[in-house]
Order: sequence, then structure tokens, then C-alpha cells
Amino acid sequence: MSQPMHSKLANVKLLVLDVDGVLTDGRLIYGANGEIGKAYNVKDGYGLRQLLNHHVHVAAISGRRSEGAAIRLSELGFEHIFLGCKDKIAQLSKLQSALNIDVSETAVMGDDVPDLAMMELAALSIAPGDAVKKVRAYVDWETTALGGQGAVREVCDALIDARTDSDFTT
Amino acid sequence: MSQPMHSKLANVKLLVLDVDGVLTDGRLIYGANGEIGKAYNVKDGYGLRQLLNHHVHVAAISGRRSEGAAIRLSELGFEHIFLGCKDKIAQLSKLQSALNIDVSETAVMGDDVPDLAMMELAALSIAPGDAVKKVRAYVDWETTALGGQGAVREVCDALIDARTDSDFTT
Amino acid sequence: MSQPMHSKLANVKLLVLDVDGVLTDGRLIYGANGEIGKAYNVKDGYGLRQLLNHHVHVAAISGRRSEGAAIRLSELGFEHIFLGCKDKIAQLSKLQSALNIDVSETAVMGDDVPDLAMMELAALSIAPGDAVKKVRAYVDWETTALGGQGAVREVCDALIDARTDSDFTT
Amino acid sequence: MSQPMHSKLANVKLLVLDVDGVLTDGRLIYGANGEIGKAYNVKDGYGLRQLLNHHVHVAAISGRRSEGAAIRLSELGFEHIFLGCKDKIAQLSKLQSALNIDVSETAVMGDDVPDLAMMELAALSIAPGDAVKKVRAYVDWETTALGGQGAVREVCDALIDARTDSDFTT
Repeated sequence: MSQPMHSKLANVKLLVLDVDGVLTDGRLIYGANGEIGKAYNVKDGYGLRQLLNHHVHVAAISGRRSEGAAIRLSELGFEHIFLGCKDKIAQLSKLQSALNIDVSETAVMGDDVPDLAMMELAALSIAPGDAVKKVRAYVDWETTALGGQGAVREVCDALIDARTDSDFTT
Repeated sequence: MSQPMHSKLANVKLLVLDVDGVLTDGRLIYGANGEIGKAYNVKDGYGLRQLLNHHVHVAAISGRRSEGAAIRLSELGFEHIFLGCKDKIAQLSKLQSALNIDVSETAVMGDDVPDLAMMELAALSIAPGDAVKKVRAYVDWETTALGGQGAVREVCDALIDARTDSDFTT
Repeated sequence: MSQPMHSKLANVKLLVLDVDGVLTDGRLIYGANGEIGKAYNVKDGYGLRQLLNHHVHVAAISGRRSEGAAIRLSELGFEHIFLGCKDKIAQLSKLQSALNIDVSETAVMGDDVPDLAMMELAALSIAPGDAVKKVRAYVDWETTALGGQGAVREVCDALIDARTDSDFTT
Repeated sequence: MSQPMHSKLANVKLLVLDVDGVLTDGRLIYGANGEIGKAYNVKDGYGLRQLLNHHVHVAAISGRRSEGAAIRLSELGFEHIFLGCKDKIAQLSKLQSALNIDVSETAVMGDDVPDLAMMELAALSIAPGDAVKKVRAYVDWETTALGGQGAVREVCDALIDARTDSDFTT
């Protein structure tokens, strides 16, 4: 890993995640009364809990509203859950102010065009391996794993590793 | 891309989609009381909304009737939803008349034999990468992505790109 | 295709299918009250309807009992549905007698060890591409497609093609 | 297979399995009221029943609590089901005492970091092909199949084969 990338990872104090296609594989299961649910990944869950234990803030900012997402994210310990969000960049900006966290300390992970604007407020932009082309072309880091299949875990592990290395060297 | 293909894409004013295997991965989940639901794709949804914003008509014509499909497609802004359709070609012909849209302005995307007839009423025929052999052999364009895994998004992006290019050159 | 295989296909008057892993991908979704459902494939459905139209009998013989399976198979027009079957070979033998259909006219498709016995009552034994090793080693034909992802459709198309060829030559 | 590995397999009297990512593909389906369910594999089920018939004890020890898991595992004949377990190693130690089974007779299969501690109480440690890196680096055996897609079946078949070989040679 390049030294600048290592610094970027070690500096992250806030990780912002889109939901569909990032924490899920992008499938939306619909039944007779509308959306029934979608599939999260148990390995991502473990990684996120560990990251929270390392005192990194984690937020979800999603354009879709779904009750299942709110429950899953609360169970994982997310403090900042913004679903049905129409203006993602305004929401992120507000969150950075509230937490007193700088752009240089922010990472954003998204898989589609509506996430691009948020990435301008982050020193580190990340996409799962199956993000749309425009997003993969934009980001600093494209994970090996796909959305909902360990992409978030890959990010959590890298963030924790970078922080741990930093802890040892300071 | 060949010039004739570019023209075909730029001319499309109506995109007609089959549902199962095109907007979904072809899985039908059945429980104790029959079909429970099926899985749509969040990235397809974004592409379709953008296409509608570019004033392309989008229609779904499916042989199966399922309430979840009607809800998902309405949420996406589909104006023309025909489920449980026994005569797809008659339905498409009627829709073309009502919208005053010509065969040369119509694209049809399907994955199985019952979609072939509709394709005769379209200047541009498209199949997801995992369509049945007879359909893949027939169509003008086979997408790289599979049904329910971004095949429709790939089409939406290409249609918008072709229109945008045309807008610039006219 | 070899001439003996073509004859075997053309002779089939009864196709017997296992359910889980053949008509489905082998996933069993369980929720708080037990099995919720499983996923069938829309392309298999079209193939089976066509096969029934060609007057081939189709039967399902499965060790598991699930109400969703009964509904799906009835919708497809299956006349012979045996779920929760403890003695598959006895059931098949009884069905062959009732329909006056010979071993030489029977094809059996299964994915696991409990299906092997039934295959001794069939001139043609078939396995999806992801059947267990012992079954793949035994059968006459292993389909390219996987269970629940078009394996049954591949069989239906081959049976119809073989019959149609035969119709022309007689 | 190496002779020591064969001995290890033949000696197993207790197989301990994690649930999510081992008996399932790691997907957690959430709907409006929380977790709806997850997907088990029919081929794993057959293998586990056979293993129980060969008088190997099978236990599930999982950090998550889900009612669907309890039902699925009971149906398969699991005698020892520990869900929502906060201290996996203490639970396993207690179980080994109760069954009078030694570390040398114990195999543990897990896919993530919380399973590593349990593996210290087992002569044979196993991971599905898609376990996290730290676990794959630790275990004696990484299966070819992935979690929820036959990884457990692969283990059951190997255990039964090793026992059967031993039966013949004694």
C-alpha cells in the first residue's frame, strides 16, 4: 500500500456508507405489499462492530427509506442513520459539523452516481467491486469484494489495520 | 459502437421491458401461499428514473401477474404496466398507436421465447447476457450484465448516452 | 449428440424431477416459524409448459414436503406431484404402472444420493451441473446449467428438439 | 490426503459448526420487523443426517440468535444447539466435558474471527472457501465449496469416508 493511502486510512474518523449495493448486494425483494426486505452480510456486521470499538464513527446515508435497514443498522451500533435522504451532500456536511470532523478525516463508500457528490466531502472515496462504471472511475479505492458480499468488511479491516499500525508508531 | 447502432439507440422513444429474467434474475420465491416475491435491482432503478427524466417512455409487458411487480414499477415511475398479458404483440402494437410511436423508435428487451414476437415491432432488440439461446441468437444487442444484475441499467445508460450525443450534434 | 443419446431423448414419455437442487438452487429459506420458501426459475417454467404441450408426462418426486412447491408445480401444470416421499423408487414404479410407461421411456433428473435409486428405473438419468459428485459420476447426462438456474429448461429444450426431429423423420 | 489428516478425520466424534457463513451463505435478510430469515442448503442437510447416522455428534454454536436457525437445526437432528452464545469457547469446553469427548476427537468449522478461539479446542479446524482471511490462514482445511453452498456437505462426506475406511481396516 502506498504511504499516502496508508495515511488516508489511518486518518479516518468517520466512515459514511450508502446502503443498497454497499451494505447489500443491490437486490430489492418485492412482494404483494411492496418491498419485503433485502440481504445484509454477517461478515460486514462483525467488521463494523470492531470499527466502532476502535472509536471510528460510522454513518449510513441512503436515498431509500426502508425499516429493515434502520433495524439492521441500529443492531450493529450505527449512531448516525439517515434513510430516505434527498440531499446526501447537505446531510454529510451537517454531520461533519456536528461531529467536528474534517473532510481529511472522512471516508465515503458508495456504488452509484448519487454517491459521487458526497465523495467530494471526503479525503478517501471507496467503491465496492461491482459499483457502476462512473463511480469506479472516480474513487480512490475499489474493493475486491462486491457489495453485500464483504466489501464493507474489507474496508473495516483496512481501516483498523491502518489505525493499529499508527497506534504502534506513535 | 457502429454508426447504425448509435442511430438506433438515439432514436428510441419507447423502451419495452419484460419483467422476470430482465428486471429480475428470474428467481420466483414461493412460500406456503404461492409466490412471495422476487428480487429487483437498485442500480436498474436509478437508470430507469434517469431515462424517464430524458423523456423516453418505458413500458413493462409481462406474461406473469404479480402484485409486487406493479408496486416496484409504479414506484420507479413506469406509466405503462401490463402484467398477466396473454398477447404481448397485440399489447405492444396498441401501445405504439396510443403513444404515436413508430417501430423505428421502439426498443424491446426480453429474455425468453414469448418475447421474440414483440421484437418484430422494434427497430432495436436487446437481451440480458443470460437470456435463452434462441433469444440471444435473435437480438441486435446482448448486454454484458445479466438479468436483475444490471442488464437494464446497461441499456438505460447507453440510451441516455446516445441521446446526449445526439443533443450535442443537433 | 450421439445417436443412442438422441434415441433416448426422443423416447422419453415421462420426465421425473426431484425438487430441491433441481427445480431450485438448493437454498432453503428459514424464518421464525420454519421454512419460508425457496426460489424456482421462470425459464424452467416456460420449458416445462412447452414439454407438457408436447404430451410428455412430468412428475415431481421429492423427499421434502413444502406447500410452496405444491403450488408452483400445480401452476406449471404438473399432474403428478409427490412431496414428502419416503420411498422414491416405490413411488416411481407405481407411477410407471399407472401410466403404462416403461423404463425405456422414463427420464429421471436428480442432484443427490436419494435420487440414485430412482435412476435405475430410467433409461435416461440426468443431473444439474452442481449435483453431488456421486450423482454426477452416475448419470448419462450432466447439464451445463445449475439447479434452479436453467438446468431443467436445458432438459426440456433437448427433449422437445429430439421429439421434433423424430416427428419429421417418421 | 496425508495420513495425519486421514487420522484426524477418522477420529472425529464431535463436529461443531458456526451457523452464519458456514451453514448459510452469510446473507441476513431483514424486513420491516427485523431479520426475516436466511438460506440453508439442502445438500448440507443430507450430509448432516448421514453423519448423525454414523454416530458423530454435531453441534451448532453461534453468536447470533435466530428462531429459524433453531427450527432448521432441530429438523436436521442436531442435539446440541447453542444460539446467541456470548462465550463460544466456554460453551464448547462444557459440551466436551458433558459428552466426554476429547480435543483430539473434536472438529470445529467456522468462517470468522470469533470462531478462532473454539478452534484451539479442536484437533481439526475447518473453514469454508469464503471464510475471512485470518481464519483461512489458521485452519487445517479450507473446503472447496463456499458457506451455505455445500461447504458443510464436503466436510460430512469426508468424515464419513474416513470413518468407513477405518471401519474396514479395523
